Amino acid sequence: MSTEHRPGPYPESYVSAENLGFGQPADGWRRRLYIIIFESHTPAGLAFDVCLLLAIVASVLVVMLDSVDSIHNAYGQRLHYVEWVFTAFFSFEYLARLSCVQRPGRYARSFFGVVDLLSVLPTYLAFFFPGLHSLVDIRMLRMLRIFRVLKLTAYLVEYRQLAQALRASRRKVMVFLSAVAIVVVLLGTVMYVIEGPGNGFSSIPVSVYWAITTMTTVGFGDITPHTDAGRAIASVMMLLGWGTLAVPTGIVTAEITTRRGDGTDVRCHACAATGHPRGARFCYECGVPLQADQ
Amino acid sequence: MSTEHRPGPYPESYVSAENLGFGQPADGWRRRLYIIIFESHTPAGLAFDVCLLLAIVASVLVVMLDSVDSIHNAYGQRLHYVEWVFTAFFSFEYLARLSCVQRPGRYARSFFGVVDLLSVLPTYLAFFFPGLHSLVDIRMLRMLRIFRVLKLTAYLVEYRQLAQALRASRRKVMVFLSAVAIVVVLLGTVMYVIEGPGNGFSSIPVSVYWAITTMTTVGFGDITPHTDAGRAIASVMMLLGWGTLAVPTGIVTAEITTRRGDGTDVRCHACAATGHPRGARFCYECGVPLQADQ
Amino acid sequence: MSTEHRPGPYPESYVSAENLGFGQPADGWRRRLYIIIFESHTPAGLAFDVCLLLAIVASVLVVMLDSVDSIHNAYGQRLHYVEWVFTAFFSFEYLARLSCVQRPGRYARSFFGVVDLLSVLPTYLAFFFPGLHSLVDIRMLRMLRIFRVLKLTAYLVEYRQLAQALRASRRKVMVFLSAVAIVVVLLGTVMYVIEGPGNGFSSIPVSVYWAITTMTTVGFGDITPHTDAGRAIASVMMLLGWGTLAVPTGIVTAEITTRRGDGTDVRCHACAATGHPRGARFCYECGVPLQADQ
Amino acid sequence: MSTEHRPGPYPESYVSAENLGFGQPADGWRRRLYIIIFESHTPAGLAFDVCLLLAIVASVLVVMLDSVDSIHNAYGQRLHYVEWVFTAFFSFEYLARLSCVQRPGRYARSFFGVVDLLSVLPTYLAFFFPGLHSLVDIRMLRMLRIFRVLKLTAYLVEYRQLAQALRASRRKVMVFLSAVAIVVVLLGTVMYVIEGPGNGFSSIPVSVYWAITTMTTVGFGDITPHTDAGRAIASVMMLLGWGTLAVPTGIVTAEITTRRGDGTDVRCHACAATGHPRGARFCYECGVPLQADQ
Repeated sequence: MSTEHRPGPYPESYVSAENLGFGQPADGWRRRLYIIIFESHTPAGLAFDVCLLLAIVASVLVVMLDSVDSIHNAYGQRLHYVEWVFTAFFSFEYLARLSCVQRPGRYARSFFGVVDLLSVLPTYLAFFFPGLHSLVDIRMLRMLRIFRVLKLTAYLVEYRQLAQALRASRRKVMVFLSAVAIVVVLLGTVMYVIEGPGNGFSSIPVSVYWAITTMTTVGFGDITPHTDAGRAIASVMMLLGWGTLAVPTGIVTAEITTRRGDGTDVRCHACAATGHPRGARFCYECGVPLQADQ
Repeated sequence: MSTEHRPGPYPESYVSAENLGFGQPADGWRRRLYIIIFESHTPAGLAFDVCLLLAIVASVLVVMLDSVDSIHNAYGQRLHYVEWVFTAFFSFEYLARLSCVQRPGRYARSFFGVVDLLSVLPTYLAFFFPGLHSLVDIRMLRMLRIFRVLKLTAYLVEYRQLAQALRASRRKVMVFLSAVAIVVVLLGTVMYVIEGPGNGFSSIPVSVYWAITTMTTVGFGDITPHTDAGRAIASVMMLLGWGTLAVPTGIVTAEITTRRGDGTDVRCHACAATGHPRGARFCYECGVPLQADQ
Repeated sequence: MSTEHRPGPYPESYVSAENLGFGQPADGWRRRLYIIIFESHTPAGLAFDVCLLLAIVASVLVVMLDSVDSIHNAYGQRLHYVEWVFTAFFSFEYLARLSCVQRPGRYARSFFGVVDLLSVLPTYLAFFFPGLHSLVDIRMLRMLRIFRVLKLTAYLVEYRQLAQALRASRRKVMVFLSAVAIVVVLLGTVMYVIEGPGNGFSSIPVSVYWAITTMTTVGFGDITPHTDAGRAIASVMMLLGWGTLAVPTGIVTAEITTRRGDGTDVRCHACAATGHPRGARFCYECGVPLQADQ
Repeated sequence: MSTEHRPGPYPESYVSAENLGFGQPADGWRRRLYIIIFESHTPAGLAFDVCLLLAIVASVLVVMLDSVDSIHNAYGQRLHYVEWVFTAFFSFEYLARLSCVQRPGRYARSFFGVVDLLSVLPTYLAFFFPGLHSLVDIRMLRMLRIFRVLKLTAYLVEYRQLAQALRASRRKVMVFLSAVAIVVVLLGTVMYVIEGPGNGFSSIPVSVYWAITTMTTVGFGDITPHTDAGRAIASVMMLLGWGTLAVPTGIVTAEITTRRGDGTDVRCHACAATGHPRGARFCYECGVPLQADQ
């Protein structure tokens, strides 16, 4: 009856639910390859998964470091070679996945198939189209490589649970977000009127951006109110944003601590134990029936 | 008897509870118009609601874009025509609503009636009183148009629930806010004394504004303490503001996690009741002793 | 069995528990005065309380406005007269309280007695010692007058409950605060070493102040890390401070939403109602016993 | 069987569980010393603990004050003598601990043994190696002394509970942190592409640092978006970071307040059970119909 997730000490098999959509091969070398790549309950499969995980993290770190000018100038060439090694590894992995499932087209169109392709594409594009650098910012190519980090989401069952939980509560989230949207549009516009472009509130979209920084309590400070009325409205927004967290937290705490009571806890008349769950009929400590008048 | 709200895949009928206050017409063209405009369970009614929703969002976006100088200079005339189209549509909607309810005066004085009127008024005012621009800031007219966004609140039943929940807990909220007010007035004034106008704390209201930015953890940084004592008081306020969120959250988590234990729930072998306190020896539900190996 | 507080539509009697400490007079004019000033269940007592509440709020607003240079220059004299009216009213109130309790010394030494005295003292001090202005900052005198705002705390029973709740959980709060203190001292010192005075971290106390602004997610921005290692440590601190709120919130939500189930809700086999409380044995909708295997 | 921690009005004995690992001496002067130093249930032991606690706090304050240039210049010599007194006291304490346990090597390698050694080492190093100041920043020596503050964690049993709770939920925390890591790496890189080095986003690591300041709602403001698209992405991140706190808090509050209803709890007249869902018609505890007037 436990509601616990099913974690493992080793990475979960690679998205087994989605495997069913791609089709397991029946036998032969494709099946052996499939077991290594898509599943992790054999030593080879587990070793492959661990290697891939480390390769993903390492390659993302390489892209991040290469974006630092000082490192790029000093080690750019070496990092370029390392990038090719990773690209080769991920290309092999991609082709291996495509070759050992029964419906490769379906895999190629799935979320992970697209991510896998994006992982290797930039390096090939830059190689085959040398003039690309002048058309597409090198920063853009780095970003496409960074998308490899999404391959990590296959490895923890909790991410699927998280995605399911978000899907299940999507209506509540949409209602909440739309309420926030209405508030920041309204109060942002009021600030636009009160403060005006001279004080940084140059248009309604910019004022809405400021309203979001204020309600979410981020408070960059790049735009701040300078008039008294503006500061008053800002105070209201800050209390709204912080209060949305503080008021429910306080109410919930009050509910829970008063239910546990500060004197109204049901106490066993025989052994004086407290902390009985609500509706308890027997003392959990000594077993005698709890009296009705307590 | 479910406690769930009654959502639908389509927008809720337009505030049916308030309709009862305005009066449904009995028959004729007014009733057909009423069903289209105020209700959404017919195809025409649903189509109307969806169009209106899109028109509201689109018109608000137009006002927001028009406030950006670069867009206003490039597309100002076209946006002005689009604004007239929206104004015509909302005028028709307003007159249609007034004409098909039994008590139009009551509708005109209701929240949504006022919002509807404000939605169209600025454009007419600017048209009939050309000199208005010099009296009333164009920013003000934009703000009145932005109030259309409040028409959206009719479309989700959760907003009414939210409003009810807020009304129900208004005393708690007032107590909480007054406690916060007392703290920020007191500590803001202390900072005014310690730091003084030379450090940005030019008056008590400004210091209270700073105290609110600090306690709500927004922290714009437009005013910051420079003295050691000021920074000490500021630290106290920051811990107060953040702690108001962190301490109750921690206490509630401690309550819940200790009640569940850090292993599997102990389950009574006789009646399958769970949720026993740690170390409980008897089942609170049926009274039999809990077995040691559970 | 309700655990609700006892609110009233009118302000609570003035700290009745503490009245017992001061002693109610038995009869005569003192008793009639006592009933008016200290209690609020008679029309006169209620009217007095409401007047006093409004006077406190108004006088605090006057002090706040007087601190604004532009207002002080324009209306200073008039505000000074208004201040004398308030001082006279609060002096009468103070003397009245002292005269109608049985143990005036005890009242004078209580929290409210001290606040009442501080409310009137500055004006008299400034009057009798004209040279005081050069010794004691006028800002200090304003601050002493602002302390009147604490008189408001007598009027809501929830403040006493809040004070009791804080006293009851003071050990938990102390443990939490000491843990935060250890973290900010340690990590603040690490940042002092890494960044150094050249980057704004001029001493360990200043670095601890910065650490508090970061962990409480306030983030003024008056001091920011400039080195890579410093930014890495800062990232750790930010995740610590925000995570202290986010991780427990997420765990509690997971507990509650999984307990309500996403398919494991007990469902009545007769009428299909769900949402039964834990341990429910009968369907709340149709009354039949819930089956054990559900 | 209470689930409460075992607090005491006096400091807990010095990590009694770990004492078992070091070994209590059987008798003699070593045992008497052990009782004083490691345990606190005798007057001498309690006095020792209190002295040590005060000494730790005082010595940390001395190091913090000495780091302030103005104080260092005025009182540097005196603080240096005080530092030697503390070093002597902590050295005696360290040697006393080593001498009265049965397995001193084990103590020396334990967490507290290392902390104790670090507490005294800097002063001796600076004394025996005068040239050290030019090799190791004086700030580094101050930091090593600050590590004494970790000795405080032995004195509250709640810290061990806190450590246990963190260990128990480490998988959840790791999953959460990895999800945050993926989001800040992805969105930070997107901002790097959109804003670019000209706007402060000079490399991907710096952009990830900015993404963390934004998602954790700290918002230093040292780096801020300047493009419209950048501000839009920033708004998304701010709502993500704040929403991670606000949405679950709101859902939990909705769960609890709807379960309790917005009136008084309906109570079964037969068995007094409360907590019935809204509109429930039968008591879930005993099955009798709930009366309409409750």
